[in-house]
Amino acid sequence: MTLGGQEAMSQLTHLDDQGHAHMVDVGTKANSQREARAEAYITMAAATLALITEGGHKKGDVLAVARIAGIQAAKKCADLIPLCHPLLLTHIKVELTPEPLHNRVRIESCCRLNGQTGVEMEALTAASVAALTVYDMCKAVDKNMVIEGTRVLEKSGGKSGHYVAELRARTTGIDNDTN
Amino acid sequence: MTLGGQEAMSQLTHLDDQGHAHMVDVGTKANSQREARAEAYITMAAATLALITEGGHKKGDVLAVARIAGIQAAKKCADLIPLCHPLLLTHIKVELTPEPLHNRVRIESCCRLNGQTGVEMEALTAASVAALTVYDMCKAVDKNMVIEGTRVLEKSGGKSGHYVAELRARTTGIDNDTN
Amino acid sequence: MTLGGQEAMSQLTHLDDQGHAHMVDVGTKANSQREARAEAYITMAAATLALITEGGHKKGDVLAVARIAGIQAAKKCADLIPLCHPLLLTHIKVELTPEPLHNRVRIESCCRLNGQTGVEMEALTAASVAALTVYDMCKAVDKNMVIEGTRVLEKSGGKSGHYVAELRARTTGIDNDTN
Amino acid sequence: MTLGGQEAMSQLTHLDDQGHAHMVDVGTKANSQREARAEAYITMAAATLALITEGGHKKGDVLAVARIAGIQAAKKCADLIPLCHPLLLTHIKVELTPEPLHNRVRIESCCRLNGQTGVEMEALTAASVAALTVYDMCKAVDKNMVIEGTRVLEKSGGKSGHYVAELRARTTGIDNDTN
Amino acid sequence: MTLGGQEAMSQLTHLDDQGHAHMVDVGTKANSQREARAEAYITMAAATLALITEGGHKKGDVLAVARIAGIQAAKKCADLIPLCHPLLLTHIKVELTPEPLHNRVRIESCCRLNGQTGVEMEALTAASVAALTVYDMCKAVDKNMVIEGTRVLEKSGGKSGHYVAELRARTTGIDNDTN
Amino acid sequence: MTLGGQEAMSQLTHLDDQGHAHMVDVGTKANSQREARAEAYITMAAATLALITEGGHKKGDVLAVARIAGIQAAKKCADLIPLCHPLLLTHIKVELTPEPLHNRVRIESCCRLNGQTGVEMEALTAASVAALTVYDMCKAVDKNMVIEGTRVLEKSGGKSGHYVAELRARTTGIDNDTN
Repeated sequence: MTLGGQEAMSQLTHLDDQGHAHMVDVGTKANSQREARAEAYITMAAATLALITEGGHKKGDVLAVARIAGIQAAKKCADLIPLCHPLLLTHIKVELTPEPLHNRVRIESCCRLNGQTGVEMEALTAASVAALTVYDMCKAVDKNMVIEGTRVLEKSGGKSGHYVAELRARTTGIDNDTN
Repeated sequence: MTLGGQEAMSQLTHLDDQGHAHMVDVGTKANSQREARAEAYITMAAATLALITEGGHKKGDVLAVARIAGIQAAKKCADLIPLCHPLLLTHIKVELTPEPLHNRVRIESCCRLNGQTGVEMEALTAASVAALTVYDMCKAVDKNMVIEGTRVLEKSGGKSGHYVAELRARTTGIDNDTN
Repeated sequence: MTLGGQEAMSQLTHLDDQGHAHMVDVGTKANSQREARAEAYITMAAATLALITEGGHKKGDVLAVARIAGIQAAKKCADLIPLCHPLLLTHIKVELTPEPLHNRVRIESCCRLNGQTGVEMEALTAASVAALTVYDMCKAVDKNMVIEGTRVLEKSGGKSGHYVAELRARTTGIDNDTN
Repeated sequence: MTLGGQEAMSQLTHLDDQGHAHMVDVGTKANSQREARAEAYITMAAATLALITEGGHKKGDVLAVARIAGIQAAKKCADLIPLCHPLLLTHIKVELTPEPLHNRVRIESCCRLNGQTGVEMEALTAASVAALTVYDMCKAVDKNMVIEGTRVLEKSGGKSGHYVAELRARTTGIDNDTN
Repeated sequence: MTLGGQEAMSQLTHLDDQGHAHMVDVGTKANSQREARAEAYITMAAATLALITEGGHKKGDVLAVARIAGIQAAKKCADLIPLCHPLLLTHIKVELTPEPLHNRVRIESCCRLNGQTGVEMEALTAASVAALTVYDMCKAVDKNMVIEGTRVLEKSGGKSGHYVAELRARTTGIDNDTN
Repeated sequence: MTLGGQEAMSQLTHLDDQGHAHMVDVGTKANSQREARAEAYITMAAATLALITEGGHKKGDVLAVARIAGIQAAKKCADLIPLCHPLLLTHIKVELTPEPLHNRVRIESCCRLNGQTGVEMEALTAASVAALTVYDMCKAVDKNMVIEGTRVLEKSGGKSGHYVAELRARTTGIDNDTN
């Protein structure tokens, strides 16, 4: 598809008609109950994953630290992403699930808001930073970890309607039937 | 691989011998010139990518905003990742390259430091937040974007030696021969 | 008292039924006018307190700096306390009162909000950081200062009702009849 | 003790000779290896403490969240305390120990730096914020918690010499023989 | 004009009747649609301005970076200005216009909110930080730049009514007929 | 002056040879003792200035709050100005002097560092935010205040040599003989 510049710009709502970035005016949008869920995966060597999941009662801290980092990152979203609106999340949840069959940890985040704009960026930021935190805590033993498949799973509220991601992500071959 | 808890913990340097998170003591490590490069990809519909790359002189702002967001995020790394050390980056660079053949934007970051600890987390954070910013600016027209292949490409300085990622990432099939 | 784990977890609302931390969903709670007051004390040598209170018109700055630090800290509460909700305080007040008879400075904070969650953490954070700031400004002459009795004095709004602290704090023997 | 204003101001190093706050010039101080340890206590009902310590493998998260909050707060010290210097901590450790005999949780923090200024404010901030985080997570079941005895335990490095707190804190009657 | 202290203090609403700073209680003010516009100018050598405006398609980045910095700064206003209320801007726009006839760049910002307090500080902060960012990017070639005429142009919403700045600023001789 | 794009870009060191913003590599620059002083003026109605300067012992807080805000802003410079390097200021001083003859408050800031890059942006940011804070505290009584003449007064350290601003600023007619 090829659009002329002006038309393209008007579709990218964060750019004004001169192509300049601005923070979109949401002042006239209605408040609604909004929710977004996102996911990310961090793949690693089997031995690295074992370090996280083995170890009896001590095992919790890698995942606990990443969970907290993800929650705090959701609150920092407007500080990180230049054109995001500041907003008052009413709920943040980040779950990390080791998937030994796939040599990876799956991260799913959920954010909620009663407000004028969607919260998918907050959910994506939470998942991304939780994944980066797992990376940080395991990097001494594994430099080949890769963060994959960071995407929005579901988004509701607002006039754009209910969005549910396709069962299979377009490019990764990641199977989301465990969602 | 299965390790007993204690041994596992001692390998995950961010956990002490009780499995509790702490910020590793780097006070006795020598200063050295350190550099890390990381990459990430954001895949999108061809029409979405065209909106970024079409439009004459106006096209710059999506990539310019993401570049700035990535640079600023590198400086916030220790605030985002709980066990990262605060440090004084001497250089940050974030490049975004549209790859129309692959329907994606490639992001490569580079961070440098003369200090006591590596900067791969800063590079990864820069790449991740730049990708999230592209997502934010295009999400009005495409909800199916996915961030893929976030990983360290190269790391030098410090006693752990020079690391270069394998030519082909383990799980994505992404070809890094353009690095 | 001993509760089974599951029951205990459901009482600690910041933990889900697996004991994992999350930010509690307040989206269904009604907005109400909320207020919280907190206090803290910093005890010091008589000579140290005299340095704060003596000195004619110049004396003001130690307490003025601590007052500002406390006010700003209340606004950072959700950034400091991982599971606190971001919220829009409508009022913050921090008062510091030298109490020469007790060789201490008393700090009282007050925060207000029209919102879905209480503001006692904001008030406690304000009082704590104001006390830390007094410590910082006096530490060159007194290393034996101690911050004591940081607690909530009163809390109103929300469905949990009006809370007023007992006249005498449980463990400190601190007399709050000057409140 | 009563000092004239001018002399008093010159002792409070954060005030200039007009009594105005400034950030003290440490540029001519030698770098040295510095460490500070601080402590704080949060007292609570026995039943509240039991909720933290009971519950099998799930018990970890209250203390894990507070530990992370304390570590992150140490890094934010210069942002919270107006006249603190920004600095590059090389190590942060926060330990939380339930003390059922005393119906409290003891928090001990340790910070290290090779630099030009001491790190006791960072250690105090870590302990304070960890205590506030415990308060936050337990406040749904106990509003009478009190944070007590926040003080510096030990400080080394720099020309002011090695400081060790007295065995018994001046005002609390808290026994530090378990340090 | 000379007022007694008490009367003066009651006019400076950020000071209580003892002259102590506090964050004014806006909890009883009505929500209204609010907007503020501010401006600032950065004057520079003609050759410096030419470096910004010349250069074909590459010219965009100086202004793009400053635009983003201004937008992000508006969101940080309550963190920078101690007695500002945290608030949820619904719109931020920062425009930078080179004015070669005057050897300067003109910056105009606009902020909007539906809330209980005005947004002129946010608009002023956006314009100021955008100007500082231009300074930063050009300082290698011009140390004599000056930021001038930072002021509120227009403010609407709230009970204080509609304010429009006089056509000509009081002290600068800057002509605002191009607004 | 007109330069071709490429040459212009190489002079604006924050842009690479494609005109893209990056954080300049200072890793090879020598550490040196650096200092910068900056100034700004906020002009206001005579009656507004009187509110600040009248009022006996209570008068201090407007200027005290602005002084603290300026000091804290200097520490946030790298967070506000996208391409500024994070650095460890060893000294920050902000002075506010009412100048009744000129109906204004003069602000002078001073920052020092032993490091690889200059600190003029930190000094400018301190002066700017102190001025904005005065604006905030007086805006209830005066909407016509203007911030003027924000510029670098002096800069030393580093290989670019000692810079002293001309006695008279280029565009404001502000007389700096009181510096």
